[in-house]
This record gives sequence, C-alpha cells and structure tokens, in this order.
Amino acid sequence: MTKTPPPFEPVSSMQLPRFAGVPTFMRLPWVDLDDAAAGQVDIGLIGIPWDGGTTNRPGARHGPRQLRDLSTMIRMANAHTGVSPFKLVNCAELGDCPVNPADVQDTLQRVTTFYGKVADRHITPMTAGGDHLVSLPILRALARSEPLAMVHFDAHTDLFDKYFGEFGYTHGTPFRRAIEEGLLDPKRVVQIGIRGTLVDGADIAWGKERGVRIVMIDELMDRGMEDVMAEACEIVGDAATYVSFDIDSLDPSYAPGTGTPEIGGFSTFEAQRMIRRLYGLNLVGADLVEVSPPFDPTGNTAFVGVSLMFELMCALAVSIDRRRAG
Amino acid sequence: MTKTPPPFEPVSSMQLPRFAGVPTFMRLPWVDLDDAAAGQVDIGLIGIPWDGGTTNRPGARHGPRQLRDLSTMIRMANAHTGVSPFKLVNCAELGDCPVNPADVQDTLQRVTTFYGKVADRHITPMTAGGDHLVSLPILRALARSEPLAMVHFDAHTDLFDKYFGEFGYTHGTPFRRAIEEGLLDPKRVVQIGIRGTLVDGADIAWGKERGVRIVMIDELMDRGMEDVMAEACEIVGDAATYVSFDIDSLDPSYAPGTGTPEIGGFSTFEAQRMIRRLYGLNLVGADLVEVSPPFDPTGNTAFVGVSLMFELMCALAVSIDRRRAG
Amino acid sequence: MTKTPPPFEPVSSMQLPRFAGVPTFMRLPWVDLDDAAAGQVDIGLIGIPWDGGTTNRPGARHGPRQLRDLSTMIRMANAHTGVSPFKLVNCAELGDCPVNPADVQDTLQRVTTFYGKVADRHITPMTAGGDHLVSLPILRALARSEPLAMVHFDAHTDLFDKYFGEFGYTHGTPFRRAIEEGLLDPKRVVQIGIRGTLVDGADIAWGKERGVRIVMIDELMDRGMEDVMAEACEIVGDAATYVSFDIDSLDPSYAPGTGTPEIGGFSTFEAQRMIRRLYGLNLVGADLVEVSPPFDPTGNTAFVGVSLMFELMCALAVSIDRRRAG
Amino acid sequence: MTKTPPPFEPVSSMQLPRFAGVPTFMRLPWVDLDDAAAGQVDIGLIGIPWDGGTTNRPGARHGPRQLRDLSTMIRMANAHTGVSPFKLVNCAELGDCPVNPADVQDTLQRVTTFYGKVADRHITPMTAGGDHLVSLPILRALARSEPLAMVHFDAHTDLFDKYFGEFGYTHGTPFRRAIEEGLLDPKRVVQIGIRGTLVDGADIAWGKERGVRIVMIDELMDRGMEDVMAEACEIVGDAATYVSFDIDSLDPSYAPGTGTPEIGGFSTFEAQRMIRRLYGLNLVGADLVEVSPPFDPTGNTAFVGVSLMFELMCALAVSIDRRRAG
Amino acid sequence: MTKTPPPFEPVSSMQLPRFAGVPTFMRLPWVDLDDAAAGQVDIGLIGIPWDGGTTNRPGARHGPRQLRDLSTMIRMANAHTGVSPFKLVNCAELGDCPVNPADVQDTLQRVTTFYGKVADRHITPMTAGGDHLVSLPILRALARSEPLAMVHFDAHTDLFDKYFGEFGYTHGTPFRRAIEEGLLDPKRVVQIGIRGTLVDGADIAWGKERGVRIVMIDELMDRGMEDVMAEACEIVGDAATYVSFDIDSLDPSYAPGTGTPEIGGFSTFEAQRMIRRLYGLNLVGADLVEVSPPFDPTGNTAFVGVSLMFELMCALAVSIDRRRAG
Amino acid sequence: MTKTPPPFEPVSSMQLPRFAGVPTFMRLPWVDLDDAAAGQVDIGLIGIPWDGGTTNRPGARHGPRQLRDLSTMIRMANAHTGVSPFKLVNCAELGDCPVNPADVQDTLQRVTTFYGKVADRHITPMTAGGDHLVSLPILRALARSEPLAMVHFDAHTDLFDKYFGEFGYTHGTPFRRAIEEGLLDPKRVVQIGIRGTLVDGADIAWGKERGVRIVMIDELMDRGMEDVMAEACEIVGDAATYVSFDIDSLDPSYAPGTGTPEIGGFSTFEAQRMIRRLYGLNLVGADLVEVSPPFDPTGNTAFVGVSLMFELMCALAVSIDRRRAG
Repeated sequence: MTKTPPPFEPVSSMQLPRFAGVPTFMRLPWVDLDDAAAGQVDIGLIGIPWDGGTTNRPGARHGPRQLRDLSTMIRMANAHTGVSPFKLVNCAELGDCPVNPADVQDTLQRVTTFYGKVADRHITPMTAGGDHLVSLPILRALARSEPLAMVHFDAHTDLFDKYFGEFGYTHGTPFRRAIEEGLLDPKRVVQIGIRGTLVDGADIAWGKERGVRIVMIDELMDRGMEDVMAEACEIVGDAATYVSFDIDSLDPSYAPGTGTPEIGGFSTFEAQRMIRRLYGLNLVGADLVEVSPPFDPTGNTAFVGVSLMFELMCALAVSIDRRRAG
Repeated sequence: MTKTPPPFEPVSSMQLPRFAGVPTFMRLPWVDLDDAAAGQVDIGLIGIPWDGGTTNRPGARHGPRQLRDLSTMIRMANAHTGVSPFKLVNCAELGDCPVNPADVQDTLQRVTTFYGKVADRHITPMTAGGDHLVSLPILRALARSEPLAMVHFDAHTDLFDKYFGEFGYTHGTPFRRAIEEGLLDPKRVVQIGIRGTLVDGADIAWGKERGVRIVMIDELMDRGMEDVMAEACEIVGDAATYVSFDIDSLDPSYAPGTGTPEIGGFSTFEAQRMIRRLYGLNLVGADLVEVSPPFDPTGNTAFVGVSLMFELMCALAVSIDRRRAG
Repeated sequence: MTKTPPPFEPVSSMQLPRFAGVPTFMRLPWVDLDDAAAGQVDIGLIGIPWDGGTTNRPGARHGPRQLRDLSTMIRMANAHTGVSPFKLVNCAELGDCPVNPADVQDTLQRVTTFYGKVADRHITPMTAGGDHLVSLPILRALARSEPLAMVHFDAHTDLFDKYFGEFGYTHGTPFRRAIEEGLLDPKRVVQIGIRGTLVDGADIAWGKERGVRIVMIDELMDRGMEDVMAEACEIVGDAATYVSFDIDSLDPSYAPGTGTPEIGGFSTFEAQRMIRRLYGLNLVGADLVEVSPPFDPTGNTAFVGVSLMFELMCALAVSIDRRRAG
Repeated sequence: MTKTPPPFEPVSSMQLPRFAGVPTFMRLPWVDLDDAAAGQVDIGLIGIPWDGGTTNRPGARHGPRQLRDLSTMIRMANAHTGVSPFKLVNCAELGDCPVNPADVQDTLQRVTTFYGKVADRHITPMTAGGDHLVSLPILRALARSEPLAMVHFDAHTDLFDKYFGEFGYTHGTPFRRAIEEGLLDPKRVVQIGIRGTLVDGADIAWGKERGVRIVMIDELMDRGMEDVMAEACEIVGDAATYVSFDIDSLDPSYAPGTGTPEIGGFSTFEAQRMIRRLYGLNLVGADLVEVSPPFDPTGNTAFVGVSLMFELMCALAVSIDRRRAG
Repeated sequence: MTKTPPPFEPVSSMQLPRFAGVPTFMRLPWVDLDDAAAGQVDIGLIGIPWDGGTTNRPGARHGPRQLRDLSTMIRMANAHTGVSPFKLVNCAELGDCPVNPADVQDTLQRVTTFYGKVADRHITPMTAGGDHLVSLPILRALARSEPLAMVHFDAHTDLFDKYFGEFGYTHGTPFRRAIEEGLLDPKRVVQIGIRGTLVDGADIAWGKERGVRIVMIDELMDRGMEDVMAEACEIVGDAATYVSFDIDSLDPSYAPGTGTPEIGGFSTFEAQRMIRRLYGLNLVGADLVEVSPPFDPTGNTAFVGVSLMFELMCALAVSIDRRRAG
Repeated sequence: MTKTPPPFEPVSSMQLPRFAGVPTFMRLPWVDLDDAAAGQVDIGLIGIPWDGGTTNRPGARHGPRQLRDLSTMIRMANAHTGVSPFKLVNCAELGDCPVNPADVQDTLQRVTTFYGKVADRHITPMTAGGDHLVSLPILRALARSEPLAMVHFDAHTDLFDKYFGEFGYTHGTPFRRAIEEGLLDPKRVVQIGIRGTLVDGADIAWGKERGVRIVMIDELMDRGMEDVMAEACEIVGDAATYVSFDIDSLDPSYAPGTGTPEIGGFSTFEAQRMIRRLYGLNLVGADLVEVSPPFDPTGNTAFVGVSLMFELMCALAVSIDRRRAG
C-alpha cells in the first residue's frame, strides 16, 4: 500500500476488515503529490484540516481525520447507478493540504499553492473540509483560465460581506469573494437548500442582483428535487462546473455534527438523488465541507459525509470518463 | 445590556460572536418583571425550570438553561415569511419563573402568581418548559376572563385523569384539568400528532366526548399539513388562542432529548410549516415544553426547540401587531 | 412477578413507574422454557446476545439488554390499529438463548436447540438480536417441516457467500445459507429497502437468479410503501411466513446504533405502516436484529427497536388469533 | 432462574456471558417478598427508583436499573479478603420498592412499609438508590426498637433543615430528620469525606452539637484511611449499625454520574479499604445512593457503584455470619 | 437581578434551585463595566470566549458559557478555610470581553483595552478563558507600572517562540512574549506541574536561562505540594502577583475537557491545597483557562473549573481584604 | 511520507498541525514489511485490530484505529528521562496485522506468521491491541529459541483455563497457554496490579504453583511502585523480556474505555514511573492491549494508551541501543 501504485484500488473488506488498517480515504493508495505516480491520478482525495474561517462553533479542522476513519466503510460501486469510480478512473489519497491554524491569509495562500499543483497534474480534486472558506482558495487554483459554474448545496448562501467590522474572510464569505474575484460566473451559480433565520437578507439580495439562482428550501420542497435539479443542470449547462456540498444543507437530524445547523433541511436520500442528477455535467472538482466531529460523538455525520463524497466521486468519475471519451 | 432598555434588540453576531456572552433568550435584554421597563415589553420569554410533574424520565427542569444557551444561534428574521419579531414588537428575557422542585401544588401556585403579573403587564408570554404540567398554571393566569382556544402539537393528549392511584397533577393531565376548570373550551381545542402505544384509550375517549378535535398522526400524514391546519384554524377561529408545542410531537430523530418519545412523528420542516399557518390567529401565548437535555448530549434537541420558539414568536408578534393595528 | 403466571400481563405504569423494576421485555412475566407455564405461552420474547457473526463493527451482543431496558416504555395497545397483543394472546419473557461468544458453530447449534424447544411448545418466537446471523439457526428450528416464506426489511441482502477466504457464516450470509439448506423458499422471499455501496453485486445477482424479490430503496420510494407491501403480501401468500427486521433498514438518523449503517433509508413511520400491512399473513415468527448499543449512547435506537418489536408482536398476535379462530 | 430458589447463586459467566440475560442484581435469583422463599434470604438486594427528594439535578431514579445492568460484571469472591457473600449467606434480588415519583410523603410511606416487611422476614437490606432521602424511610423500618449507629460516607452531611421555605424532606435532610425522630443515635454517627462549598455551615454546626463525628476530607487525607476508620469503628462499637454510602463521597473523576458532585474526594481504592475495615461491626443494613445515570453516559459510575455494593455485601455477610455463629 | 446592585450576592439556592435562572457567574449580579455600579466591584468575573491562539484542538471559546452554567452549583463559603469571597468583598459578573474569532492581533488589542478599563476601575479580574494566549493581553493591561510575579499551574511552560514558521502568538507562547515585553519578572515566575512529551526542550531551556523556576511534575510529586508551594511563595514574595491556572495542569482523568492533555498530572484535591497556600500573597488577578467543552460531554471539566475559580476567588478576596486593611 | 524512508522521523507539529494528516502511529513513515526499507527498522509499530478472544464486552478491534488517531499528539522526547526513541533508533509504522474477525484459530495463525516476519527482520515489535489474546501468537513468534521473561501489568492474571465448557482461547487465557507451550518461563514472569472480584481463584493458584510472581494491587500500594519494580527487575534479570500492558491495569477513572474494568487500580503517573524502571532490562517486544473505543466516547483512554506506548517505546529503544552498543 505504501508502494508506488498501480493499482489504484481500495483494499477489499473481504481480505482486511473495514475497521482495520491505516485509514486513507476510501482505503485507497496514498500518493505524494510530488511522486511520479501522481501523474496517473484522475481523482485526488484531499483533506483541508482547517476551521480558521469559522466565526461560530469550531471543529471542522477535525473533519478530514474522521471522514477518513469512516470512509473505510465505503465499498466499490454505487448500487443505484452502477457506477464505480474506482473502476472508471484512477482514484488516490493525496493526504492533507498544508494549513496554518492561526493565520487566515497564510492558509489561503498555502491551499491555493497546493491546489495549483493538483491542477498542474490534471487531477480532479475531491476535497474534504474544513470549513467553507476553503472553497475560496480551491477556486483560485481551479478557475485560472475562466470563471467556473457552481452547483452549491447549503443552508446558507455564504455570500456575506464583512464580519466583526472589516473582516472579509470567513466561512460566510467565500462565494462573495469568489464572484468578486471573477472565479465564479454568478449567472451560472445555483444555490440549493437555503434557509434559517436571517441576519438582514443582504447576502441573498446581493446574490440575486448578480444573477445567482437561489433555491430556498420551501421552493425545493414544493417543486421537488427532480424539477429543481433539471433547472440547475440547465443553468450550469456544459460550463466547467464545481460542486460544493456543505453538510449543513442536510437536516441536522441527518448531520448534527456541524457548527451552524439549521432545522428543516432535506434528507440524505434526497441529497443522493440530487447528486446523481449531476452525472451529465462537466465537473472539474467538488468539496464536502463543515463536518465538525466534536458536535456528533457518534461519528454518524462523518459517515453521512463520506457516503456523499462517494456519490460526488461517482459524478466526477463519469465526467472525467466522458471528457476522456470526448 | 443590564441597563434599562430600550432598545429591545438582540446583540448582533457581527459584533459579538454567537457563542459569547451571558446567555439570555435570543440575546435579548433581561428585564425584571418588577421594573418599569416591563411595561414596554410585548413578548416576554420566560423559563419554567421544573419537571415535578414528570412520572417517567426527568430532566425537563434543565430545559430553559440549555434552550437559552442554544437560542443565541437565532438571528433576526424569518427567511421564509419575512417576519422579524424583534422589529415588529418589543421582546425581552424575563428570567425564570419561581418553582419548588419538591412540591407540585406549591409550584403550580408560584407559576400562576408569576404569570398573573405577566398578564397584568399585558405581556404575551412565550414559555420554555419544563414539563407539560406547566401549561396548567399558565392557563390559570391567562384564562381569567374566559376559556381559551388551543392549538396543541403533541404525541400525547395529556388528557389523562389519575396516576399512581389518586395523583391528578402530572405532565399527562394538564389539559384534562384545564378543561375541567373551564380554562379551555374543549370545542375549540385541536390536538395534532397524537400517536404511540395506548394505556387504555380513556384519555382519547374523554377528549372526544367533550369535543376536542384529536388529529392522530396517520390522519395528519394522509391529509397533509396544509389541510389539517386549515381545519385547525377554522376550529379556533378568532377566539383568544393558546399554542402549546410539546417537543415530543416531533419524531425522536429530530428531538431525541425528551422524556417520553414516540416514534413515527412529523419533521421540523413540517412543524415550521404548521406554525406559520397560525399567523392569522388571535394568539395570547405559547409554550414549548419537554426538552430534556440529559437525553440529548449533542444539544441538538434544544437547538430544534429554540428554532421553533422563534417560529412561535413570529406568530405571536404578527398577532400582537394585528391587535394593535386592530 | 416471579410466580408462575397467569396472568400474562405487563406491569402497569400507573402502579409502578415505567423506568422501575427488573427489566423483562415489555414488563412481562419471565417464564422458564422448562416450566409448565411455558405451555400456555403464545408469543415468547427471546434475546440472543451474540455478535460472533459480525465482520465489521461489533456490539449487537448488547442489544437484548438495552432493548429490555427501553421496552418498559411500551404500553398496552396499538393506537392506530386497536390491537393489543397482550389482550389477544399470552405473551411472556423467555430470557436469553444460550450462546458462545467465541465460537460460531457452537452458537448456531445452541440457538437451534433452544428454538427447537420453543417450537415444540408451540410458542411463536419474537426474537431480539444479536447480529443477523442469528436468523439462520432460528430458521433451522422453525422450518423443520417445510421451507418458509419471508418478508425481510434490510439495507443489505445478507445473501453473501464467503468472507476472509472460506468463512461462510457471518451476518452477511444467513439467508444464502438458509436458501441453500432449504429453510426458505426463495420464490416466496421479499427483501425491502436494499441499498448502499456494493462489494460487487454478486449477492443481488444470486438472489435474483433464485427468485428472491429484491426491492431496492429507490423502487420503494418511487412506488410508495402501500404498493410494495401489497406485492409483498401477494408473494408470500398464505405460506408460513417469517419476518426479519434489520434495524439498519431504517435510515441511520432514526437508528444510528447499528454496525453497518447505510444512508438514504426509510423512516420509522414508514416502517410502522409496512409492518401493519402484514396483519393478514400467516406469520410463524419474527426477529429484530442488529441494534448495537455502543453506537448510540442516547439509547434511542433501542427505543425504536422495541417500538417496532411491539408492531411485530401485534402482527404475530393477529396471526395467532386467526389461526386459533381458523 | 424464575423457579423458587435454592440455590441462591449467581449465574456463572463461564456458562452464560456476563452481558447476557435479564439483569437481576449480581445475576441472583429474583424472589418476591411475599413468596415462601423470602424466608430463606439473608441479604436482599432492593432498588428504590426514586429521586423526588432531589432539589438539584435529577436522574437517581434511573440508578437501580443501570446498577442492575452493570452488576452482572461482578464475580463470586473478594480477591483481597477472601470473602464471598454468595457462599457465606443467602443473597437474592427482591426487585424494586414501590414509589410515587410525584409525591414525597406517599413515597416515604411506601418505602417504610416495604422495608417493614423486609425486616419482618429478618432480611438484611442492601439498597440501591435513588436519592439520599430514601435512607430516611429505610431507617424508620430498621430502627423500630432502638436508635441505630451509622457509618456514613458522603461529600455532604445531609443534616440540612429546610429548603425553599418550609420544605423539610429532600436529599439534603434525611439524617437531620432521622436524628430528630430518634432513628439514629447522633453520638454513634460518623460522617466521612465531607467537603465542598458551604451554604452557611448550619448543617455541620447542628450535627456537631448533637455529637455527630464529622470527618472533613482534609482530616481524612491528613490522618489516612486506617486511622480514621479505627476511630469510626470505635465510635459505633458493637451497636446495630447502618452503612450509608453516597456515591458523591468519591471524587467525581471516579463517579461523575451524580447530581451534586464535589471535587477533591477520595478514590475507589480508598473506599474499598475503608469498607473492608467494617468487617468487625454489627451491621444491619446498607445503601448505595445518588448514582444518576444521565450524568455519566459511559456507565462507569454505575460500575463503580456495584463494585462498592459488592464490598458492602461482603461486610454485611461477615456480620450476619458472625451473628449466626454468635 | 438586573437592577443596579448592591447587594453583590449570589442568588440563594434555598430560594431558586441551582439549575435555574439566567446563568451569570456564581449567580452574581451582572454589572456593565460602564455602569456606575462597576465602581463598587472588587472582583470582576470576566469570560474571554476565544481560542484563536489554539494550534491544536479548539473549543476553549466555549469555555466561559459552560463555566457560567456549572458555576451556579457553587455555594457561599469555603468549607476548609472559612473564607467567603462574597462576604469579604464585592464580586460581580462583568460579562464577556469583546473578541474577534478570526483575527489574533485584533483580539489581543480588544482584550487589553477591556482589561485596561477593568484596571482603571480598580477591579481585580478573575478571568475564565479561552485559550492560554488570553493571559498575554491581560498582563499587558495589569502590568502597566511594573513587571508582575506569577504563579503558573500548567502541564506546559507556554514559553515557546514560533509556530508554523514565523507565527509568534499562540497558546504556547504567551509567557515568552510577556517576559520579552517586560510584563513578567522571570525571576519571580514559578511554573508548577510541567510534563508531557517534549518538542525539543528549547522552551524549558529559555525559561531557565532567564530565571524562571520550573517545577516538573516529578519534583512536585516527590517533594510534595506543601514543600513546593512554600518555595513558590518565597519566590514571588510580596510582589504584585498574577495567578494563571491552566486546566490541563490537572490529570486528564479530572479534566478531560481540554485541547492538549498530558497524562500523569496532579489531582483536584492537590490543586485545592496548592491554591489555598496562596492566601498570604499580594494577588492582582487570576485566570482559569483551556476548558474546552466539546472534549467533555459530561460537563464535569467545567465543574472542576468553576470549583477552582472559587478557590482562586477566595485567595483574591483575602488579598484584597488585606490590602484594604493594609 | 509515502516515499521510502529514511528519515524515520515523525512529522513535526511546527510544520503540520497535530490533528492533521493521515494518522500513522506517532506520525511515523509507513513501511511495508515486504519493502527493503523494513530492513532498517528497529522498532515497528503494529496494530492488531481484533477482539475475537473477548468473552465479555467487545470493541478492542477498534483500538488500533483510535490509538493511531490520538498518537499524533505525541511529541519527540521524554521530558522526564531525556530519551527520544525517534533519535535513538529507527521507528516505523508497519500497518495492521492480518486477522479474521470471525475465526480464532485462523487469526492466531495469521498473527504468528506476520510476527515471524517481523522477527526475521530483527524488528522489535511495539504492538497496539486488540484484546489480550493477541499476546499469545506474538509470543509464539518471538519465543522461537527460548522461553521469555515477562513483566505484565494487568488487573487480571489472564491465566484462566477454559470458558463456556471447553473453549481455551480467550482474552483470559493467553498466558496460561503461553506457559503451557513453553513460550514464557513462569519463574521469570511478574504480574502487577491484579485485583477485582474472583471467579474462583484457580487462575492465581495455578500461576503461583508454577512460580509466577503475582503482585496484587494491595501489595503494590502498600510497598510502593519503586520497591515492587526493583523486585520485578530482579526476577526477570537479563533474560530476553517481553512487556505486556493491559490498559485495564489502570484505574478506570484513567481508562474507562476497556471491556473488563476493575475499580481500585493505579494511576497513569504510577504507570509511567513503573515503565521507566524497565530501562535497564533486555526487552524484546511490548504490547498495549484492551483499549476499547466504544466505551470511552471522549477518546481519552486512547490518549492514555498512546502516551504509555511512547513510554514503552522509550524503554525498548534504550534496550536496543544497549544491545547494539553491547
């Protein structure tokens, strides 16, 4: 397992029990980004153990560790779509991205540098956060040539401007900054599941003005997942698209282990259905963020998290496969 | 914050983080009922830290403390209805009502006395229990002039007669006593979400005989929330109406922290929808009871509780505003 | 209570609080299988405190103890169907079946021997697991004369062949072995709720080849519970039918306390509805398995488990009553 | 096990695993106080599932249930003194004493009545609480002929007078009432481990005036367990002596599951040593109280509790054996 | 309680149960630093809800909230020394100090400003952290005229220089910076309880070179608390002395709720003894830091924390009283 | 980190935060036993994720995973002895040993085979269990040429013969089997900390007859650690010695996360002192077993475990260094 791959395959649970072994993501081989083997990787699983953008309850810095632990429960293929990302493309664990727990700007720089290398090697990143601010430096690395489209599942818009006076870089601001920096094309951004009590509504207003399509939870529930996802796919079209899944988009009964829960969310079944509707898109990366282990001592939130990471990997693999077939 | 208000406003999380500060309900100013400022309060948030009526698993006495703690996560406005109770009316923390943990009758008297003062000051009480028996002394204070109507969300009817021989005052009996005492008009009482295993069905039979409208969970699920709530609103009409929300009306996956859970309940999304249907009514008070922190170490049940308290406050505020406009 | 019954009745919570007393299942009298009183028992509640077939996360051996603890919360009658198993037939606690925590084959033999005695006394067994492998030795005792039909609620088919090389007896293999041994008629077996990531799909393929009706979760959700259960009842017809309910068939938000959770499952409300559709069948036994207390420190999973055991008991009681009337 | 004993022996863990079976105390036979077999019992293990005297954090009503659960971990003999209570005398589970969770005086009466029967049958009671007020009605039943001596391990004197105005029956008052009622001879009462912050010191002053020997934790630590216990044994002499062990006498690191912890207590090793020094006394009963399961989700406090109950049973058995030999 | 004090007294638990009411520190009146009443305060209890200096496991930002919650368990007087800080001097809750969760330098400035005001009003601060970096800005405010002496209980020296390259402000560096800035006189600094695995020992070497007296845990255990504290008192002499108590100085069995535990520490009993040896000193402030609620779901660590805060308040009160008498 | 080492060094926490990265033991490089680099390894850290020998409460199979997670908190050097195993010798993570969760004999064979390879490469194994039966197959591999001496810290002798009839391989029997098989020289075996309730004392009698030195907890506490360890060192002398540390030798307040706790044990400080007394011996391997994560949701037991693994590694490193120098 420490040897240079191939093969890029999970250790089978029929050989080694699922709870055993050093926990790499999905029991995949662990490849150093500077190794030659990195050149063969299609999907790279990366942790960003950082919550320095969290203005409320911290803990997401422990997300990647627990997500790795629970990820060894995941098997080979998607029973519902037949897709196996491990068969379709080369998947590998890339370890944790460097961070500085005590400095926001330094961390943003470190993450962008690391993902720059990932992009240079033509690896599609599947990121495990970390708080939601980590999406910003990832987008800086991935959107080097043109603004990306985005499908964004969340209870919050993350389009806020400033906190505590003049502080503009928190887990509530990444997509405001990303739109301002031209990393995202707001007209191709869809936000799904938004809800909760409002500070003042300025985030929603700002997004709408720039063309962001914000689907509040009521609309989602009333129209149904199918209908909304059809619209979402139409909006992003065939643009290079990033998928950002905040675990707090789920109802807290499914994912209590997060720092800023909001009641009245959708279910994991609905999340699975929505992610599977992304198979046709041109995906260039995905993240699953805001899993905060201290708030769920059972570890079930992390299990939900890796189950959805697997769904996202299926969508990424299909997309890579299509591009390759292209 | 310790100074005499105005203003009656929550401390903003953009100034002080949500997890910081002495936790008053919703980060509101703390007003003593004997202060002059109490005269300006429209909605008073009151805790009743008592579970002396609990015949089963205790802990609801710790409810107000944990509800206060989690309530500082609530922001200014309802994203779905646009209502902000803090903008519409004057809201304040009134502290905990006096109780005697070791004596039922003494406690009932203390609560009625306290709520009598609340009523004298024309404050609409939003109560955080405590076990469900606390609704009885509140109703004694609020129904001084005429019987009230009630919309009651619960897994249990709380229409039982006696326990352990001749004991008539427990969290299973408040509304039997209230109807017997003429505090509630049974023909204007609607109970929603009733389910679970039966002792013998005498409670349901007694209620039906007197005209209480009991909506079992099966009927609720089959007809849908909208249809049932339309009927509920019609039943209470424009009578002075009390709203009592027992957290165990929710499915225990949403609210495990309660003493007498019953599986197969409704969701928080459905609860939100139902409460928002109350906006048109003539509401004179509300309570949220039976949050028992020891049974949910994650604190998520209390977060659900305060999120629904906020929904109830929105409904109360709209009602007060209408009466004022009246 | 230690005296020879009758009466076969739960201790009333109006006399002794629900949390009090030595916890027998449902507060029923405890009858030794070798006592004369055993001859009067219709439904026997039996624990199998064993997880020696668990290849993944253990703990189901503690299931019966915690299920007994929580079972004292269950009352007399089903509020939705009016059935009271305690009124309809004689129910009793039979204690735990002998097991050997360190030897699989010895345990299988001990369980079959015990259930052979149960069958000899014409007691219909309602079993609390333990891991799912316990269903195999139960079926060996119950299917002595002819293969049984089965309605099986689960996230997994449990139709796997071998683990860790040549090991054929785990909680993933019971129904493969049972079909091979002629204990189940595969054409009269329905599996409901199957989902999760696949090892390789060989289990599903094997089952389908033999005529097992496998209802994946997507089909269940799309068609609805009513429609699927109508088909299930048609498949098993009036054959002698066993019901096996794996707690992991529920979504983990309802039942996190289990060793191999899969997201995207059905709810307890849906489970109740489906079990109530079994009333018309010719049921000869039921089990509820895979409750693993260490994975749910709140105990809520065990409460869900005993609530569904009560639903299963109602179905068994109706069936026994019909046969008797028959 | 449900048959009339003899033999009065725990089920062996070499036959049935320790975690298996209906949990009676110490896996002993369960004897109804009204059965003929009760006449053969020397030590009766009794639960009092009640915390109606608790003015602070409740939960001790759940103590007996969890103590039973953990008690099945206890084996046959004391490795350090060689004593096996199960060999020396007849031990049996007597079930839970009747209580009324919502009425203090009614409960006191029920407990005294039950223990009156216990005394009538010449059974030495080993009680599992419940909160500390349960000692009062036990003493009322045991001290019918003359005041008892007492060795009392606790962080608190429980010699308070009134709470919340005029309320005289709480878990802080049992021994004040017992001395006032002539149930205890204050000059033969020793209290060991007293500490914590003071309300006003009136309890200590009252005790000292009447001759109670109060050993504060500092004196205990400075003089050592041996020296203090020698004095304690001298004080009670050969008088009929009751032993009351409040789990909060231990440091909370050993027993966090209790309602009124005080830091800076003694260890379980020290507790074992002290209890073993009681072997020479004339003991007539013992209790272990204030285990509150909701405050220790690991269950470790209950395990500590039953381990000390076993030590107390050894001391009781030696005493009974001596009296019989006497 | 919201009115301008006097009296500066905790609400009595004989009137309102300990678990009831809005939780101010020790149930004391809540005084705004800008109110006139602040001029009468001798000891001010202040929370600093911040862990932005934490390089490892976060959560100390939640410390003040949980410490307040548990602090309502503390009564009036020290049973072992007879001191009641509430009788001796005026104690008050001052609320939480302003912080910025996402910016270290901004937070340091805000804390120093707040404590500057505290010092201006001649209030002796008793601080509840927060991580250990909060001691630095407090010392900047308190050591305005001359370097302070310090008695420091900790598992770590907190004399590190830089982290993650050039980052000099973390919870491992406060006293290095304080000595460099001339806020502490290193020759009058005693560190007690130091242990754990070493990074490289440079922190210890740096401290020793400057004259800091570092008492490793082995020396403390071998010499005994009394002897070491006698030396500590001699070292600080009658200089103005600050006391800093890191909860991780305790063994983790007493205080698991902290981010950087080290096994093999001292007990709470020993901590109480050591703090009581400080009564003769000239104390100008104290803090208790690094309580991290997410790591102890039982809340027991916070209870230990407030129990030691009470001990520290006794020492501060004696010191203030002496100076006043002076 | 995935590259072929050297250097054999932990990742520094000054570069990557302690909670970050794929968790190998002590943040060491991960070497495959079949790689050339394995030839350079002096101390190999190996997990055995197995609890198939557990007759009571399971969970130790999850030990290695959680021990790895917490092990990243350990730094470079022992503050009290100055030893750094990472500087003295080459330490590496070797991954988990193959096991079969459902078959005891197959697992014993797999472990012996794996450790045979470890021995062939002259690697000194530092094992993380798993239940205590894992020591038996390790000893089979290490004692190929002659019986070993052993220092064994435990609450139990693990010298039992049979369970559940004729079952001779459980976590209570490893050292009986090892002595019978000639793997251990009983006259050079010392067991320290034995206590708890007895089944029948046959295990102790058997050991004593063969010359095993059994130090019960009372003797240890009375004589003191120093004295007992001096005797222990004398007994094993300069024989090749194995060290087996069962986490349940500690008092459960320090290590609640274990399946068979016994109250009244020693502290972590005492354990550290005792292990440091082993520096002079001729050590050939060590294990730390019976950490069962499900029984300690805080993870603190695992932290205690890895802290003691570090102490054991220091002793092993000194021994290897001496032999090399020898």
